[in-house]
Amino acid sequence: MTTATVKAYGATASTEVLKPLDIQRRAAGADDIKIDISYCGVCHSDIHTVRDDWKGSTYPVVPGHEIIGRVVEVGDNVNSHKIGDLVGVGCMVDSCQTCSSCEQNLEQFCEKGATFTYNSKDKHIEGSQTYGGYSTSVVVDEKFVLRIPENLDEAATAPLLCAGVTTWSPLRHWKVKKGDKVGVIGLGGLGHMGVKFANALGAHVVMITTSPEKGKDAKRLGAHEVLVSKDQDDMKKHQGSFDFILNTIPVGHEMDPYLGLLKIDATMVLVGAVEPLKPFHGGSVIMGRKRIAGSLIGGIKETQEMLDFCGEHNITSDIELIDMQDINTAYERVTSNDVKYRFVIDIKSLK
Amino acid sequence: MTTATVKAYGATASTEVLKPLDIQRRAAGADDIKIDISYCGVCHSDIHTVRDDWKGSTYPVVPGHEIIGRVVEVGDNVNSHKIGDLVGVGCMVDSCQTCSSCEQNLEQFCEKGATFTYNSKDKHIEGSQTYGGYSTSVVVDEKFVLRIPENLDEAATAPLLCAGVTTWSPLRHWKVKKGDKVGVIGLGGLGHMGVKFANALGAHVVMITTSPEKGKDAKRLGAHEVLVSKDQDDMKKHQGSFDFILNTIPVGHEMDPYLGLLKIDATMVLVGAVEPLKPFHGGSVIMGRKRIAGSLIGGIKETQEMLDFCGEHNITSDIELIDMQDINTAYERVTSNDVKYRFVIDIKSLK
Repeated sequence: MTTATVKAYGATASTEVLKPLDIQRRAAGADDIKIDISYCGVCHSDIHTVRDDWKGSTYPVVPGHEIIGRVVEVGDNVNSHKIGDLVGVGCMVDSCQTCSSCEQNLEQFCEKGATFTYNSKDKHIEGSQTYGGYSTSVVVDEKFVLRIPENLDEAATAPLLCAGVTTWSPLRHWKVKKGDKVGVIGLGGLGHMGVKFANALGAHVVMITTSPEKGKDAKRLGAHEVLVSKDQDDMKKHQGSFDFILNTIPVGHEMDPYLGLLKIDATMVLVGAVEPLKPFHGGSVIMGRKRIAGSLIGGIKETQEMLDFCGEHNITSDIELIDMQDINTAYERVTSNDVKYRFVIDIKSLK
Repeated sequence: MTTATVKAYGATASTEVLKPLDIQRRAAGADDIKIDISYCGVCHSDIHTVRDDWKGSTYPVVPGHEIIGRVVEVGDNVNSHKIGDLVGVGCMVDSCQTCSSCEQNLEQFCEKGATFTYNSKDKHIEGSQTYGGYSTSVVVDEKFVLRIPENLDEAATAPLLCAGVTTWSPLRHWKVKKGDKVGVIGLGGLGHMGVKFANALGAHVVMITTSPEKGKDAKRLGAHEVLVSKDQDDMKKHQGSFDFILNTIPVGHEMDPYLGLLKIDATMVLVGAVEPLKPFHGGSVIMGRKRIAGSLIGGIKETQEMLDFCGEHNITSDIELIDMQDINTAYERVTSNDVKYRFVIDIKSLK
């Protein structure tokens, strides 16, 4: 198979910082789209994978699954996009397309295993793996290429591809609607999108945070109320009153206090903590028939719906734009929760 | 208010065994039914309350919320039951009847707090509390008195009032249907009813147990398969294949292995462990959008539906009948999980 050398940034070991390296991209096949990358968001998962926190990292790791760019080449069978289109690629670049999950537009749960945008086995290049968007271009099957509304700010659109759909999908799946009281726990890359979406869907949005100083910004982003979870009196006041809680906390944590906030039959959905949670009390769900659930990104169809909704409602992420060369400092700042609310790499700096 | 002295068995402190004592019952009011008790089931909650395991016990505690008996007196407003009828009383004897939970027939989640059959504040006798079915008679508001199908064995019907509805309610609420693959974890008082109900609802029932020796009995009760949870290979074979899991384990336990058995979007419902669970991994629900939920007994309407279903399908509990005087030995045997599958007290022995 013909390949082309492409500039990228990646890590060669879990203990190494990111540095420039060359990777091979396949030539566009009949079903493929070649994208000239303009922006790529920085997701906490990028850092986990670079540092092998979840094990299973194969080096070099070239992260990046919030990719925005322009179509520069299309294969013969491609009819969804044309040269010059503004497009995006999220967390997945392939799936079996035939299993029951794929048939339900839940490619993220493909029974054969979805091919993720980086650190997955590459179906197209024997013995190789996928490399993400910290690079100048990428070649992707058209089924995994998203249409980006042209009215949106390009750079600020990048995080929609992961942080956006990760919060959108549960809000939609659990049918959050006008007038629902929705809690969003944690105001980071995921949480700030959760607040924007829940607001745009007409919910009464309560930002639930340990940090009272985040309240003002939460309200600017669309929260109607702020609930400081360390304030016992305030927590008691909101007891049993939430229709839905989106929990974006990225690490293990106590769940009982949050479960106490739910109404009867209501659900708290975990989207951040791919980690062991702290023990919760069975009574916290038995009393009130409450539910804890999880949600992982979203399918391609749902991602497109989210992007179209963002186009209509003019929703993007709040970002800090950085050069590729600043990535290691950015990682430190993400780790210490010092970013409002997502870093996006200007890929021009890599070209 | 007129009261009558009634023979009962109860505990005067958390460290005491149960012994004979006299309690006061109110005279039947206009909305009340007086029941001559014939049988009362022994639930694990009885023991927890006697021993103050959940705190909040007020002594004397007279347990018993699986009550079967005959109507001996009815108030002027009563039209649901008449003298001589075979009736039952479960875990609740009063609720506000006006809150949103009560309006949805979920009296167990009454916003004002349901009055439980024992160890709850008694609305009818100032300064007193409710006393349960380890006694010769009881007076209960007609709304909390259930009709018992006459074709069923009286004694074996008693445990339906708690163990029955506790397992029936989640199977119905999560709409278990013909052909669903349903797991029941734990083969005790709750689990053996879960197996019978899931089978009667047409599901493919898998008994999930740590004890291979329970397999034969599980099949007799209605399980189609037995999955020994300590057998790693067998657990792997059933991975991602369950539509629903009813988890009756009464103590804190690891949940990750069981969550792995669920299909995408499927739910495991806890009905036994009113205790801190062991930590589970966020990935166990995030991957596959799975759910952990809880369920508490069931409402009065649902309890009646369950009893009618039992009448039609001739379903009762498997019981060991004991005399009131044997209760302390029975408690020891319940605690060491040595009962098939529910003790029922023959109240004749108390009269």
